[in-house]
Amino acid sequence: MPNKTGISHEELRRVNTSALLGWVHHNGPTTRARLTQELGLNRSTIGDLTALLSEAGLVEELRPDRVDLEAGQVRRSGRPSLVVSPRADVGVLALMLDVDRIVAAVVGLGGDLRQRRERLHQPGVHEVQQVVDSATQMCRDVLRAEPDMAVLAVGVSVPGLVRSADGLVHFAPNLGWTDVQFVDLLSEALSLPVMVGNDADLGVLAEHLYGAAVGSSQVAYVGGTVGIGGGFLVHGLPLRGAEGYAGEVGHLIVDSDGAECRCGSRGCWETKIGSNRLLSSAGRLTGGGLAAVEEVVQAAVEGDDAAGAALDDVAYWLGFGLRALVRLFNPEVIVLGGTLGRVFESRGARVLGTLHERDGVDFAQNVSVRAGALGSDGPLLGAAEVGLAPLLADPVSVMSAYRESHGGAGSPGAA
Amino acid sequence: MPNKTGISHEELRRVNTSALLGWVHHNGPTTRARLTQELGLNRSTIGDLTALLSEAGLVEELRPDRVDLEAGQVRRSGRPSLVVSPRADVGVLALMLDVDRIVAAVVGLGGDLRQRRERLHQPGVHEVQQVVDSATQMCRDVLRAEPDMAVLAVGVSVPGLVRSADGLVHFAPNLGWTDVQFVDLLSEALSLPVMVGNDADLGVLAEHLYGAAVGSSQVAYVGGTVGIGGGFLVHGLPLRGAEGYAGEVGHLIVDSDGAECRCGSRGCWETKIGSNRLLSSAGRLTGGGLAAVEEVVQAAVEGDDAAGAALDDVAYWLGFGLRALVRLFNPEVIVLGGTLGRVFESRGARVLGTLHERDGVDFAQNVSVRAGALGSDGPLLGAAEVGLAPLLADPVSVMSAYRESHGGAGSPGAA
Repeated sequence: MPNKTGISHEELRRVNTSALLGWVHHNGPTTRARLTQELGLNRSTIGDLTALLSEAGLVEELRPDRVDLEAGQVRRSGRPSLVVSPRADVGVLALMLDVDRIVAAVVGLGGDLRQRRERLHQPGVHEVQQVVDSATQMCRDVLRAEPDMAVLAVGVSVPGLVRSADGLVHFAPNLGWTDVQFVDLLSEALSLPVMVGNDADLGVLAEHLYGAAVGSSQVAYVGGTVGIGGGFLVHGLPLRGAEGYAGEVGHLIVDSDGAECRCGSRGCWETKIGSNRLLSSAGRLTGGGLAAVEEVVQAAVEGDDAAGAALDDVAYWLGFGLRALVRLFNPEVIVLGGTLGRVFESRGARVLGTLHERDGVDFAQNVSVRAGALGSDGPLLGAAEVGLAPLLADPVSVMSAYRESHGGAGSPGAA
Repeated sequence: MPNKTGISHEELRRVNTSALLGWVHHNGPTTRARLTQELGLNRSTIGDLTALLSEAGLVEELRPDRVDLEAGQVRRSGRPSLVVSPRADVGVLALMLDVDRIVAAVVGLGGDLRQRRERLHQPGVHEVQQVVDSATQMCRDVLRAEPDMAVLAVGVSVPGLVRSADGLVHFAPNLGWTDVQFVDLLSEALSLPVMVGNDADLGVLAEHLYGAAVGSSQVAYVGGTVGIGGGFLVHGLPLRGAEGYAGEVGHLIVDSDGAECRCGSRGCWETKIGSNRLLSSAGRLTGGGLAAVEEVVQAAVEGDDAAGAALDDVAYWLGFGLRALVRLFNPEVIVLGGTLGRVFESRGARVLGTLHERDGVDFAQNVSVRAGALGSDGPLLGAAEVGLAPLLADPVSVMSAYRESHGGAGSPGAA
């Protein structure tokens, strides 16, 4: 494909500072020598870009013996190349709204998660203003604990449909929210820009950057507990669709004769592989999420037949639905997050057996299916990434705007 | 998302010549003034790029009165801006392998389709070498008829799974081909580089560039006759997947109790909306493709109840399957190609009614469903685009390599 727009010389600075900051943020401290290779730029350009980012307070240059580098990144003989490191004192607040709890943390450049705190919702209550108040308080506590950090924005993970244009929470059935302007409410309370994303979209992003799908640019992620969501990377970019509602795999129909779904349809994938289906098949109370699913897995290991049969059943339908995803997306890697990762670890052979069965052509021949590596914090890390996105896209301008609005005080690198 | 790699000053020439040539190829002759706006580059850069491309024989500059421009592109007062036009004497061969026929043409920069020729396969026979021989002869005839054209490559549309890495035709059930190296065979016969793509992938590309989805970058295309294929644009880029096999919507399961599919599964979408299903439901002989479907539509208009009921049934399942695509891709536009475009024109209300029914949340609220605008030649135009892709990505280098290998003779702009 041809490039759609040209790039001016002025634009080039943005493109290249973005590439350099993105590289060290995602890959950690890196020598100038390696940066020239990875970014395809010559030494003097790398030097100029590093100076720009350093002056903006976004990277610092360290002697290699001061950095914990993986072997091979530093030449052992000759004059050691300086190591360009992201400034961990610049970052964002990350917030994850879950069915049963709110999690908050601060995440600096480099992906370090600090001051992680969580708080359960009041049982059954997800009243919008209450959630905003609770989240605001948690965020203020986190900020107070990190007084030296330049916090540029808030990234939020929501279990529901999020409109790309403005972050409107269009529909979040597990919170009971329809068309909620959470962005505006939180942004006003914290006086910070707020970016919102769907939990599965953020989950796949995090697994791609830090987890089970590093190095793959065609990735399918299926996660969740009660509700099942999907997130996809296509050419390394998130699939969002025209409005931001892409990836609703939970409502793919897998069994025309199946039970009615809360969406109004019948036999949706969510009714077959959601955690409540697993729990009720195992003869247990629904609700309880990941912990309750762990109990079923443990019970099956200890010989509980109902638990074993319930896992078999969910594993079958998990593999069955993955066949559709493979035919549509031909992913290199499928990551199973949330409770589905536990089902896969317990019944992997059955999931894969179903995925590969029956086809004349096996569309899934070369796909790798994996449990998520980030546990339930994946979407939280993804939320940080969405909060950092404007900075990573245009580092110098965004940082200088931040400094101006903060009167130059308290910003790192201003000294 | 941050940029993944940097762009050097040398690379910038490639990026910007690519952007300029791509623009005039897809949008036609354009004034320098408008190019500065559209590409975001200043006048002197546009001048330099135009000179480079002109010297390479890829564009020419014309006085506006010599070009048929749409109103508004030329300033009527003052000195008229020169118009940059793609050279139509540089292009590619486009080839479309269909179930029943082969179509060949030459397509120049600017998208002009010339010397279109078609030839039916021998009934029922798709022996590889015979198809290669037949296609080669057609291509030679077309080339002979365009002696002044610099033909750089061949783009081919195939109704089947095409491996991105090398163009291997992995599986084309309607041709009876499995793992056929059509690229090598044709490339050797014609001494030209050959690029192969899946027909639906090329269909969506063509509808995006020239047809029903111009201006939309999130597009779903469903086309075909007997077999049903899908092509998707995500962020304006083709969804290919890890190996090139993405988009196999024909084998989405829509009815667990449905008829067995030739893929080995049951109730695939293809068994519900393919042309043979329509024909047999209407009490007619299967086979016959688009022409036979036209007969059913006409018969329904004239009061044939069986034909009307068959169209109703296919329209229902068409809308039903689209619901899954909308949930997964949240496209801005859905284009229905091949026989499905005719079904939609005849039974649009029923398709849309089914698409929007039953959901608690209507995921399809804002999608626009349209019949394809390019008829059955869509994939042919898409094939040309794939053939042109290397030139559009790096115009000056590719053209200079072409000239070298052709001894400088016969190439346009060499005078």
